[in-house]
Amino acid sequence: MGNVGHMDLTHRVSVPPPEPFFQAMKASVKEMFFPDDPFRRFKGQSARRRAVLAFQYVFPIMEWAPTYTKEFLKSDLIAGITIASLAIPQGISYAKLTNLPPIYGLYSSFVPPLIYAIMGSSRDVAIGTVAVASLLMASMLGKEVSAAAQPGLYIHLAFTSTFFAGVFMAALGFLRLGFIVDFLSHATIVGFMAGAATVVSLQQLKGMLGLQHFTNETDLLDVLRSVFSQSHNWRWQSAVFGCFILIFLLLSRHIIGSLKRGVNPPSVSELTFSTQYLGLTVKTGIMTGIVALAEGMAVGRSFAMFKNYQIDGNKEMIAFGMMNIVGSCTSCYITTAPFSRSAVNFNAGCKTATSNIVMATAVMVTLLLLTPLFYYTPLVVLSAIITAAMLGLIDYKAAIHLWKVDKADFIVCIVAFLGVVLRSVEVGLIIAVAISVLRLVLFIARPRTSVLGKITDSVGIYRSVSQYPTATRIPGILVLQIDSPMYFANAGYLRERILRWMDEEEDRLKASEEDTLQYVILDMTAVGGIDTSGISLLQETRRNMERRGLKLALANPGTDVMVKLVKSEFVDSLGQEWIFLTVEEAVDACKFMFHTYKSDIPNLTTMDIIDAQANV
Amino acid sequence: MGNVGHMDLTHRVSVPPPEPFFQAMKASVKEMFFPDDPFRRFKGQSARRRAVLAFQYVFPIMEWAPTYTKEFLKSDLIAGITIASLAIPQGISYAKLTNLPPIYGLYSSFVPPLIYAIMGSSRDVAIGTVAVASLLMASMLGKEVSAAAQPGLYIHLAFTSTFFAGVFMAALGFLRLGFIVDFLSHATIVGFMAGAATVVSLQQLKGMLGLQHFTNETDLLDVLRSVFSQSHNWRWQSAVFGCFILIFLLLSRHIIGSLKRGVNPPSVSELTFSTQYLGLTVKTGIMTGIVALAEGMAVGRSFAMFKNYQIDGNKEMIAFGMMNIVGSCTSCYITTAPFSRSAVNFNAGCKTATSNIVMATAVMVTLLLLTPLFYYTPLVVLSAIITAAMLGLIDYKAAIHLWKVDKADFIVCIVAFLGVVLRSVEVGLIIAVAISVLRLVLFIARPRTSVLGKITDSVGIYRSVSQYPTATRIPGILVLQIDSPMYFANAGYLRERILRWMDEEEDRLKASEEDTLQYVILDMTAVGGIDTSGISLLQETRRNMERRGLKLALANPGTDVMVKLVKSEFVDSLGQEWIFLTVEEAVDACKFMFHTYKSDIPNLTTMDIIDAQANV
Repeated sequence: MGNVGHMDLTHRVSVPPPEPFFQAMKASVKEMFFPDDPFRRFKGQSARRRAVLAFQYVFPIMEWAPTYTKEFLKSDLIAGITIASLAIPQGISYAKLTNLPPIYGLYSSFVPPLIYAIMGSSRDVAIGTVAVASLLMASMLGKEVSAAAQPGLYIHLAFTSTFFAGVFMAALGFLRLGFIVDFLSHATIVGFMAGAATVVSLQQLKGMLGLQHFTNETDLLDVLRSVFSQSHNWRWQSAVFGCFILIFLLLSRHIIGSLKRGVNPPSVSELTFSTQYLGLTVKTGIMTGIVALAEGMAVGRSFAMFKNYQIDGNKEMIAFGMMNIVGSCTSCYITTAPFSRSAVNFNAGCKTATSNIVMATAVMVTLLLLTPLFYYTPLVVLSAIITAAMLGLIDYKAAIHLWKVDKADFIVCIVAFLGVVLRSVEVGLIIAVAISVLRLVLFIARPRTSVLGKITDSVGIYRSVSQYPTATRIPGILVLQIDSPMYFANAGYLRERILRWMDEEEDRLKASEEDTLQYVILDMTAVGGIDTSGISLLQETRRNMERRGLKLALANPGTDVMVKLVKSEFVDSLGQEWIFLTVEEAVDACKFMFHTYKSDIPNLTTMDIIDAQANV
Repeated sequence: MGNVGHMDLTHRVSVPPPEPFFQAMKASVKEMFFPDDPFRRFKGQSARRRAVLAFQYVFPIMEWAPTYTKEFLKSDLIAGITIASLAIPQGISYAKLTNLPPIYGLYSSFVPPLIYAIMGSSRDVAIGTVAVASLLMASMLGKEVSAAAQPGLYIHLAFTSTFFAGVFMAALGFLRLGFIVDFLSHATIVGFMAGAATVVSLQQLKGMLGLQHFTNETDLLDVLRSVFSQSHNWRWQSAVFGCFILIFLLLSRHIIGSLKRGVNPPSVSELTFSTQYLGLTVKTGIMTGIVALAEGMAVGRSFAMFKNYQIDGNKEMIAFGMMNIVGSCTSCYITTAPFSRSAVNFNAGCKTATSNIVMATAVMVTLLLLTPLFYYTPLVVLSAIITAAMLGLIDYKAAIHLWKVDKADFIVCIVAFLGVVLRSVEVGLIIAVAISVLRLVLFIARPRTSVLGKITDSVGIYRSVSQYPTATRIPGILVLQIDSPMYFANAGYLRERILRWMDEEEDRLKASEEDTLQYVILDMTAVGGIDTSGISLLQETRRNMERRGLKLALANPGTDVMVKLVKSEFVDSLGQEWIFLTVEEAVDACKFMFHTYKSDIPNLTTMDIIDAQANV
């Protein structure tokens, strides 16, 4: 049947020499925190060169500025002016969304882009405020302090939250914990944003119906209860008036009013670290920081993938952190790299972060000279901008795509949406992340196992019989593939599942009157790791098989697994000769044994019992 | 080089027909909650037979009792009397450990074993109280109610906690959530038990030093602070006296005193559901329930593996739950299947759960007739039993084994130990479980990737070049194996890691002046699943490679992965012809293409940019 000679066991599974503990530890810490190997370029350089490289590492502007050309400047000028024309109305609108005076939106488009241009490593992102982080800040701060009643305090808390967001971002980057942001999956973000947009829309009901008393909560039930419990207070006139006013606004000019002339005033002295609001500002800072990072990192990474350069995620976080820390001291609230503005920047042909400097300069000119022009800006323009942003956030096409491709991701998305709509922005985010993590854990708790068969006419290709109808089982031999690491969380399940596969195979053989089951081969190719519970599972399975008169063989265990199987003496108890490099070799060996010897199964000894007890 | 003909592409990767959503859902729910397929035996039976089977399913005694033989009875009698002789002193000792009057230990060895004999499916476990659950209950209840000051209330709360533990266990079993117990790994339990034993030993310092004021906390720091802050109060006489009394106790007879004659009084009316203690009892019930289940399930499973019969873990939980619910109504506190007692039962040759009935009968006789005999039992015997139990709990050999085999498990073990010793029993347990789960998540967040090479002289065997020194890389082709599912948590990491592998390979090729890199083959064998973030990662990697002039090929994606790659149209964008059944076929195809055509890389189109933006 096989083309390979029987007992062709020249290829053995290799066991690498044991690695010293600290060396192994160092390697895994490096892989954990420095997967992108940022120090690669420092290797084999002189001390002086290293200092220059380190300086360039912290301030990427030192890397590209010396080779900056006129061509680049031309491109960056065009891109910078283009994004400035977007930054000014967006800044004003998002500031209103945050319940801050409009001028702070402009301030936030001045200082942070300059800091980013010095410290950031993306050539394509444009810096500014974003809708979701603005919303989240308004929702979290608004629960404890009313922007209308205590505008001064509210502004101070917004700066302080921004400060903490910056510290949090920079700390994540500095501690190289950037991967935490990865836990906000695409599905979570889609659901979360749609929920946030819905919440903002709901809040408009108050004004539309002319209600005096309105809930401070943002969740759907409270808002609807608040609306319907006051149905006697509904003013149909108000609703009609609302509609009229909408039309009126569209036709007439409801305006911003005066904006203070001049660039960002310092705001260090306005940071509030009093214990009364410390919890609130830290919490708001962390939550808005996570949301801002998630958007900014995704944007930076995807443009870098396009232009084929690399971004050090952790370094980016430090840049984002610093721009928010400095921003919070210069009257800015939370900023990141908004997707829309960065896409415009990219499409306008930006070459380097200089486009951010151009944009900041344009905003500065506006602040110094042009603020009076905004006096007559119709508020309806801002509403239109916010509404457009809100509609843009409900990405129902992405949700449909999730449903089509991955139901579990769709559920995460819907849960994030419902969490935000029914409870609050933070709750939605936390629940969605928890579900995503649960899904990872469940993936390991219930790994896929499949019976392998030989693909007809192939040279030793074994594949799942359920995926490949042409794969045929080998009589008397059950080949199982385990698709996940063997860890404590799945040891119990795998034990039961392997037994069930054996029972089912025996039933099948009995029904079809084929040979009896003699050998079970576990294909360990996809078993990426094993812990002591996993080893106990293998030990117990081996003993159970021996008691049934079956023999266990392993195929292709990886490095880590093999090292642990040797250390735990499992290899000795199984017999080194029962570990094979490929499934084909294991099958050939089993066939050879089967024809040569009668089954020779050791008896159960007292030692076995004691061993098993020690493993409980 | 290869023995297989070029472009031998007769084997294609199979895409199973799309499964209807509800069918797929049903299959995965079944695998999640019914991995042991308990309804297999009901298939194709008459309604009457089904009813009998269902009755037998709920009460396994109906299954084995009809075929019970005299031989069995003889074995069970011997085993039952043997374990009774262990149950009586153990019961009394552990009751003292729980700060309950000794008689409750005997009560707890009477009713629960009877319930288990009817409902349990293990033939080998013996039911009774266990040291760790007893300790945990004492520690948790003792924080709010003093057993010395309010003995009546304390007893009521112990019963109520037991009641909730029973409800919790039965609910877990009924909802088929038994896998939750798997999250207490062997390593966690080793550390946790050693910590618990240390905590009990620490508490003895009070009596030994004759201190009047002693902390109510159980943690090391508080106890030591309490001890050393009162060093002026240390009575060296007391310490010396303590030592003398120890010797005195060992020689003389410090006795239990009278035990009430008679079997378990009902205690339904003593269950306390007042809101004041509801939180405490529910929390204590859940924590002790988890600990009791973890021990009981492990014991039952390992003996079942020995004798080659199967245990339905969820059914076992219902049995454990019921015996604790009934127990709490008949003056028993929390019981499970203790390892020591079950091992004795097994070694004494028990055949069925009848040995539990024999034990219960022996305990009943003791309660009815023999309690006066215990009047003169020296307390030192109890201390000896507790001390022996405590020493037995510190399984330093297991800890050494963990260190040798798996450093991460060792860390989990030490953290559980330190958590219990430095904070409290619950905190230790929660931290250890959290670390274990974190480890699972990190396994996925930082999966292993390895470069594969062809094993010299083999027929298409590709293995990691770091594990197999004889594996050689194919010039111009980089073969990468990814060892985990591609999920949101690792999409960012994998993207960077794959790019880094490509950079390193290009550097290596440049240094050795070999061919340039042309093809990257991802071996997807070990990729057990993919979500939408994973698909985006593949899309972006493909685009990035095209921009570098490289071509991506996939080898052996599994069923689930293939289905999603087709649904998300990744297969269309990559080209169906770039997905291969084996690495060998992919390599052969790449070599063929390389020699036949010049690289033909599509240009970057606007559509690509729009696609990428949609994926942010």
